[in-house]
Amino acid sequence: MTYELYYWDGIQGRGEFVRLALEEAGADYVDVARVPGRGNREMMELVDDTRTLLIPFAPPFLRDGDQIVSHVANILFYLGPKLGLAPKDETLRWFANGLQLTVTDFVTEAHDTHHPIAVSKYYEDQKDAAKARSREFVTNRIPKFLGYFERVLRQNPAQDGHVVGDGLTYVDLSLFQMIEGLSYAFPAAMKRYRARFPELTRLHGVVAKRSAIATYLASPRRLPFNESGIFRHYPELDIDV
Amino acid sequence: MTYELYYWDGIQGRGEFVRLALEEAGADYVDVARVPGRGNREMMELVDDTRTLLIPFAPPFLRDGDQIVSHVANILFYLGPKLGLAPKDETLRWFANGLQLTVTDFVTEAHDTHHPIAVSKYYEDQKDAAKARSREFVTNRIPKFLGYFERVLRQNPAQDGHVVGDGLTYVDLSLFQMIEGLSYAFPAAMKRYRARFPELTRLHGVVAKRSAIATYLASPRRLPFNESGIFRHYPELDIDV
Repeated sequence: MTYELYYWDGIQGRGEFVRLALEEAGADYVDVARVPGRGNREMMELVDDTRTLLIPFAPPFLRDGDQIVSHVANILFYLGPKLGLAPKDETLRWFANGLQLTVTDFVTEAHDTHHPIAVSKYYEDQKDAAKARSREFVTNRIPKFLGYFERVLRQNPAQDGHVVGDGLTYVDLSLFQMIEGLSYAFPAAMKRYRARFPELTRLHGVVAKRSAIATYLASPRRLPFNESGIFRHYPELDIDV
Repeated sequence: MTYELYYWDGIQGRGEFVRLALEEAGADYVDVARVPGRGNREMMELVDDTRTLLIPFAPPFLRDGDQIVSHVANILFYLGPKLGLAPKDETLRWFANGLQLTVTDFVTEAHDTHHPIAVSKYYEDQKDAAKARSREFVTNRIPKFLGYFERVLRQNPAQDGHVVGDGLTYVDLSLFQMIEGLSYAFPAAMKRYRARFPELTRLHGVVAKRSAIATYLASPRRLPFNESGIFRHYPELDIDV
């Protein structure tokens, strides 16, 4: 069965956390909105469907036969065991989902650095608030979240460099993407933070070198970061901490 | 086995979504931070523990023997089947988790109406931005989210007034709490929206009258809303739409 991923074309965005898991596993999937002739319209028909129950609030969502799963953490919780990217131990699966939801919260905060007032307005119309929020984000929130994940990496009894259990999970892939996005959006700040959080920096490098991931990153399926996505580079928001 | 809920004392906050499920089910649980002699300190010892893996990023989290589960949606996904508050059908369980994560996103946006710039600063220090963000929230975001849940209620093939499947689930309880919180924080706006979203308003009334919930709401365990929680009433942020 081919997995169908529904997400906006043109950006990495939240869909990228799911793509990385599908790519790492070599899963049979289609990125629906990027298929010529299908595109965003087919996605929005599902969101606007007035006859069925399983309507998602927003992309990304995944279709697997009759199952529709929305929200990144939910999709990864669902896919993880099928793709061989979840811990085998059930206690650790719930922990992994908690970690992924922490990534979710952090991604929302990263988004709100450029849209602190209104998603319906342009960045240019909320620039002063964006600067104030970015200062808080870069000074307090980045180290709080990265410090947490660094601790989890260090306290993992498996001590093999993965964040949960003794092998690669979807959470490791998401942490890679988090560091990728932050490094694009806040390069000056991240130069310091990469040195301050060596376990995370090491994990980022390990994931980037995995064969399936390296192939994906070099392919046209990996869109470049840009200023329509979650992680945006506005030099005026990047504070040298 | 007694469930241990860890959350800040003094506010309903995010912990309330878990409390409502535990109370509805008549579960054996203890609200650790409210137990004299235990309190917030015991909670923060778990968060700051440097020896174990399962450290949560922040409260709320639940301890069930050796299992620690953090994040409201994760806790409810874990507890739902044990408390008889999850759909029986697995397809619907993943859908319910997507709905709960939509509630999570909405709660974050409700919180950010009074803290759009920095959680580390007082409301009084970000009042202008709070007004601008609240205008967006009340005008665009409340109807977008409530309109979505109203549709899901209407499109549920079971047609029995619950949001997923043919019986009460934890998502119904969370929607009740969402309406409660919004009605406290934005009474003028919600007067209109309650009329505009009758299915949600009806569900709110039905949940409030359930025997276990009514008993809980009248008990001292249900703390009143206040201006330290997620849903705060600042009259200057309540726009009459």
